[in-house]
Amino acid sequence: MEPVKTAILIIGDEILSGRTRDINVQQIASFLAPLGLSVGEVRIVADEADQIIEALNTLRARYRYVFTTGGIGPTHDDITAECVAAAFDVALTLRDDARAILEDWYARSNTEVTPARLRMARIPDGARLIANPVTGAPGFQLDNVFVMAGVPKIVRAMLEDIADRLEGGAVTQSISVRLDGVREGDIAEALGQTALNYPDLSLGSYPWFEDNEAGEMTRGVVLVARGADEARLKAVESELQGFSRFLKV
Amino acid sequence: MEPVKTAILIIGDEILSGRTRDINVQQIASFLAPLGLSVGEVRIVADEADQIIEALNTLRARYRYVFTTGGIGPTHDDITAECVAAAFDVALTLRDDARAILEDWYARSNTEVTPARLRMARIPDGARLIANPVTGAPGFQLDNVFVMAGVPKIVRAMLEDIADRLEGGAVTQSISVRLDGVREGDIAEALGQTALNYPDLSLGSYPWFEDNEAGEMTRGVVLVARGADEARLKAVESELQGFSRFLKV
Repeated sequence: MEPVKTAILIIGDEILSGRTRDINVQQIASFLAPLGLSVGEVRIVADEADQIIEALNTLRARYRYVFTTGGIGPTHDDITAECVAAAFDVALTLRDDARAILEDWYARSNTEVTPARLRMARIPDGARLIANPVTGAPGFQLDNVFVMAGVPKIVRAMLEDIADRLEGGAVTQSISVRLDGVREGDIAEALGQTALNYPDLSLGSYPWFEDNEAGEMTRGVVLVARGADEARLKAVESELQGFSRFLKV
Repeated sequence: MEPVKTAILIIGDEILSGRTRDINVQQIASFLAPLGLSVGEVRIVADEADQIIEALNTLRARYRYVFTTGGIGPTHDDITAECVAAAFDVALTLRDDARAILEDWYARSNTEVTPARLRMARIPDGARLIANPVTGAPGFQLDNVFVMAGVPKIVRAMLEDIADRLEGGAVTQSISVRLDGVREGDIAEALGQTALNYPDLSLGSYPWFEDNEAGEMTRGVVLVARGADEARLKAVESELQGFSRFLKV
């Protein structure tokens, strides 16, 4: 059994401009991993209909699930719901159950239900709602696409709501071994051999560089192995720990 | 004049798995903006040749420049150079100038030039090198594709080296107005009208939620306008500041 492959589509000019650093990719990937779902691809696109629709249609055909974030608020720049409806070629209509959720939510906070807020009750035909316990306005699921807000706190809550709807595969476990002072070039050959000996695991090497308190650059490498078999991961872990022998002094 | 559109391709299982939070998208986008270059799309793909090659060929055809990060180190999981050569259908050969850079670099630190390290001197035919003052091993530019390391510190240095090679367009400026306590639904209508009045600017609305010291959730919205004309941005800024009148007390 393999992990089930999914994709993430981040919708938002604010990420592309560099104004905001995305944290939803990491949040979603970390949430999915224990469910046996892995992320095979991420796309970040602008608030532009053509781009959103094309990415949606490509990703939903290729991956078991697609998770989108961003663009479902009440303002003019929120166009995700329209784009999802267009991608699936279904109507986008004001839905009674979504409207009731909003009216109930706003009644409790004495907030006026403006036409702008009612935009958030427009749901593509056939979609199932996703609960939003943070700000009320629901997300929705249409077929294999899960449409969530952009605010990380709301994304987190929406993931909790949809977890039961997701069918995962094998859960990927990982081990990591940090080797201070070791350089990638020193271990590359041995690591390549280990990778050949463990074809069932995925082995990655990630160099790091940090300034220490004296302002000098220190370095090292983190080796990561991923796979479904814990015994194999334990075995490779001790083999990788032995790579500290390659430290040059 | 418009900003010139570019794309970023992040190559790395460690980002997709959620183990590492990407900061290169924000770093690259922030570096490019003052040069009149905007990021139109980002893709994050796994360390898999087919995926890398397809993404490269799609993005380099659509965007003026493509910036890649990751996968050019000495270990077995670093396959970006092979993939770039395959995408352009050129040979990947050990190049004398790149080899000389590596030999010189390692000689100064008494480091052995292993076969694994020499992998980093394999450069696609026709490429121009990108200097790496942090760890020596160069990146490279082939046509409109800039191939950089994954470590953010090295990416930063490589961007400095290639800045002179990039032809930018109009520089996008931005203003942002933070409105504490204001909710998106309260300003959505007025903001939509403002967007119609400033069709030359791009207006975005970004809600935020924070826990205050008493543990209560506070909220507000940040309105961002982008464009090339400073006078127009100043005008819209004061208009947006006036939106504090929508605060419900």
